[in-house]
Amino acid sequence: MAGALSSTIHGNLIARAVSSSNPKHPLFSHRPMVVAMSTDQSYWSSVNADLDTHLKQAIPIRQPLAVFEPMRHLILSAPQTSAPALCIAACELVGGHRNQAMAAASALRLVHASASTHENLPLTDRPRPMPRTRPTLYGPNIELLIADGIIPYGFELLARDDDAAENNSNRVLRAIIEISRAMGSQGVIEGQYNESQYEESEGEEIFHVGWLQNVCRKKEGTLHACAGACGAILGGGSEDEIEKLRRYGLYVGMVQGILSKVDERKEWPVKEVNKLRDLALKELKDFNQAKVKTISILVETRFCNL
Amino acid sequence: MAGALSSTIHGNLIARAVSSSNPKHPLFSHRPMVVAMSTDQSYWSSVNADLDTHLKQAIPIRQPLAVFEPMRHLILSAPQTSAPALCIAACELVGGHRNQAMAAASALRLVHASASTHENLPLTDRPRPMPRTRPTLYGPNIELLIADGIIPYGFELLARDDDAAENNSNRVLRAIIEISRAMGSQGVIEGQYNESQYEESEGEEIFHVGWLQNVCRKKEGTLHACAGACGAILGGGSEDEIEKLRRYGLYVGMVQGILSKVDERKEWPVKEVNKLRDLALKELKDFNQAKVKTISILVETRFCNL
Repeated sequence: MAGALSSTIHGNLIARAVSSSNPKHPLFSHRPMVVAMSTDQSYWSSVNADLDTHLKQAIPIRQPLAVFEPMRHLILSAPQTSAPALCIAACELVGGHRNQAMAAASALRLVHASASTHENLPLTDRPRPMPRTRPTLYGPNIELLIADGIIPYGFELLARDDDAAENNSNRVLRAIIEISRAMGSQGVIEGQYNESQYEESEGEEIFHVGWLQNVCRKKEGTLHACAGACGAILGGGSEDEIEKLRRYGLYVGMVQGILSKVDERKEWPVKEVNKLRDLALKELKDFNQAKVKTISILVETRFCNL
Repeated sequence: MAGALSSTIHGNLIARAVSSSNPKHPLFSHRPMVVAMSTDQSYWSSVNADLDTHLKQAIPIRQPLAVFEPMRHLILSAPQTSAPALCIAACELVGGHRNQAMAAASALRLVHASASTHENLPLTDRPRPMPRTRPTLYGPNIELLIADGIIPYGFELLARDDDAAENNSNRVLRAIIEISRAMGSQGVIEGQYNESQYEESEGEEIFHVGWLQNVCRKKEGTLHACAGACGAILGGGSEDEIEKLRRYGLYVGMVQGILSKVDERKEWPVKEVNKLRDLALKELKDFNQAKVKTISILVETRFCNL
């Protein structure tokens, strides 16, 4: 499948993606991976640029600055996730216009920023920040509250996207339900909980593939599945297309989740990633193949390297 | 106004409400306050019973129990707030049916439970729980995550209330925006922030009426204003009715907020409460007076005493 992909790529610059922390082990050792650095990269750059512009307009700098300055900063500086971009790409893949998915993509970025901020809080039962997290910038109490304020703002952005001219209320409500479920106790929260359990037992650390799968399925997987489904819903996709892009998102999220944790681990599951990539690409086979080439890059490399 | 109210009350049992911590100072020393204990009380009891039933059905006990058991407990045991009941009463006041506001009332209870749980977290920059809070039941990390999961669940409940037969998508979306704004950085979160600033300066404690007003306006006031507006929106009220019930809710919330903080303070602002009560009752003068009698009890006594 990777071979088929690379043969369709006409990029000017081809790069082999490797694990940054472990250059001796290419990410996909069984199948050398190629990434086109032109058309595909410019697509994702334009999606991200549009999303940034939209977010900056949507998040006002206003009084009280003690609230809105850190809110804006925590949203814009949160760790990168490919879920919002996938949401927009899924919308365009089913024939929708980018603007139809922009509010949902922004909401996804906000709820993800909130979850990341809370992950980083130093609570009394986890007194030291986890190794890969940053120090709190504004003090734990402020960051707790700001992140609490970010979640409803995400839902507000999405609910405000209701457009009488487009008669899209039902699609917007459906997207709200999708994001609610993804962020809730059977989605990202469950993943965070499972992840924290592992952190707590770190003394006896063995790298469990099962644990990694489970965390990535619930955290990154659920978020991306939701992103794929929301994009397809808002772009007017059929139920079949919505479910395909939901499953594609799940696999993308799991791959992205695994790749994001690879750098910190001695071992990482090559077979698992290859299996997920194959499953992901199967979900795309009935879509417009010109667009598929671009969207499928998300199971080929880390989004932050695009 | 209180006199006008009491003259319309035909309750069997009349009680004078007093500050529980300071029996020498009745709550409304300028105007003795009476509370009907029959018709009005049974109205609020039935509203709360219906809400409890709805919530228990809406919050499943399912796997993983480690997530859903504390979630259910934290929601059902959260401090009482009159906002959800006001939402239902406002809906009925404008001629709507109780069921039309039940999902929004449930969402209000959920987001309030989440905010209360986060208020109680022992963070490293507020290592001791504040005097009136409970110890964490499940450990800070779990309570952080559970409360994070409760907020989106509230929005999900509301978004799912969309009923094609009733064609109420636009009302539901409007209610989602109302709740988002109320819970966000210019509402409850701002109130919590202001409250935490006071807690931090407790060494030099003087009871500031201005501070109390500000905190109660943003916390309880905004939540109740939202509740009044949502109830009126979902019940099909006119724009004028929605705004009146929004303002009524603001005053109710401020009174409830002040009364809830009275017990811990040596002084409390009688004049302020009386002024808010008068403002509140003015907002109700154009509504059905039989129903007004019941709803106006919310500015007469603490909701938890009803």
